Amino acid sequence: MSIDTLTHDLAIDDATADLLFREARTIREYSDAEVTDAQIAAVYDLVKMAPTAMNTQPLRLLSVRSPEARERLVPHMAEGNQARVSAAPLSLVVAYDPAFHRHMDTLFPQVPGMGDKFAAMPEVREEMARTNALLQAGYLILALRAAGLSTGPMNGMDFAGVDAEFFSENGWRSLLVVNVAVADGPGTPHPRTPRLDAAQAINTI
Amino acid sequence: MSIDTLTHDLAIDDATADLLFREARTIREYSDAEVTDAQIAAVYDLVKMAPTAMNTQPLRLLSVRSPEARERLVPHMAEGNQARVSAAPLSLVVAYDPAFHRHMDTLFPQVPGMGDKFAAMPEVREEMARTNALLQAGYLILALRAAGLSTGPMNGMDFAGVDAEFFSENGWRSLLVVNVAVADGPGTPHPRTPRLDAAQAINTI
Repeated sequence: MSIDTLTHDLAIDDATADLLFREARTIREYSDAEVTDAQIAAVYDLVKMAPTAMNTQPLRLLSVRSPEARERLVPHMAEGNQARVSAAPLSLVVAYDPAFHRHMDTLFPQVPGMGDKFAAMPEVREEMARTNALLQAGYLILALRAAGLSTGPMNGMDFAGVDAEFFSENGWRSLLVVNVAVADGPGTPHPRTPRLDAAQAINTI
Repeated sequence: MSIDTLTHDLAIDDATADLLFREARTIREYSDAEVTDAQIAAVYDLVKMAPTAMNTQPLRLLSVRSPEARERLVPHMAEGNQARVSAAPLSLVVAYDPAFHRHMDTLFPQVPGMGDKFAAMPEVREEMARTNALLQAGYLILALRAAGLSTGPMNGMDFAGVDAEFFSENGWRSLLVVNVAVADGPGTPHPRTPRLDAAQAINTI
């Protein structure tokens, strides 16, 4: 399918499609420019609006900025990812909160009592939180790009180690780490890897 | 955080932020306008470019269009979702392919032999496929909106029933169903449910 055909079928302009999807690249080297807390809050204010099952919104983020915090995260990353976390101006530990049900009376007022029902179903909550936070992680990566930021998502890490290090009190559970930097150039220089085409990934009946 | 502050921190324009995140609503009633296969292919051509671990791209879509196919899907949906699937012009069964490794020599040429390594690790593949296809499902929902389409994602369904009905030959596994329609109005009339704010969802260290 040609770019012309693509453009014809989109409701966003070409530059935006490039920024969010087509030209954005996972980064392994980072601009030194600061990624501010205000930028991350603005990104979150987009992410939070996208849908989750029963409006559960289980995504939680630990924003790792200080050198001390970074030193605590690095040893729990896979060896190939450690230098990347050390070098990035900001790393987000993307996690979910299995205790999301404590917010349900606020988040899902149309069905009162869902919080209490979920309280008795920890396995259902675990599955629901993980599934929906991963959906939200997809929104997050695109929202970071929408804020002019580059992303380096990684899930080569010791999840249990990260959870013990950072989440022993609040009970969050880690899913991935996303390095974040101000987008300032061509990004990763290696060639783009191939993609499956629509005919390989979609069946129609 | 005010809209002004948000806009300041974004690299996309306000109308696009509204289209993708802020004003888009999950729909329960649908325009009759046709959603074309070309539109879905254009959406997929955005989704495929966003990142997955080791470029695995495990997302697969079953596009359910014909009345006969729809009749096969409806009984596997939760009761509250059945009429929605019957009424939507198109429903996508969002799934993952645990046999994604058969494409790895093409998708991840920088490490030859990954396909064979994954072949011996079905549990690792299952987890990786599920995790990364859910990330891609997040990309998909935003990409559908980027194509001017409205989405109604649902995961109240009998996953094993759907898999037996549609995927007994190719081994795909269902994650959710997304009803798709041409966006043509205000969408769901009920009030928007509350969102957690950044201070509730983000810790910084």
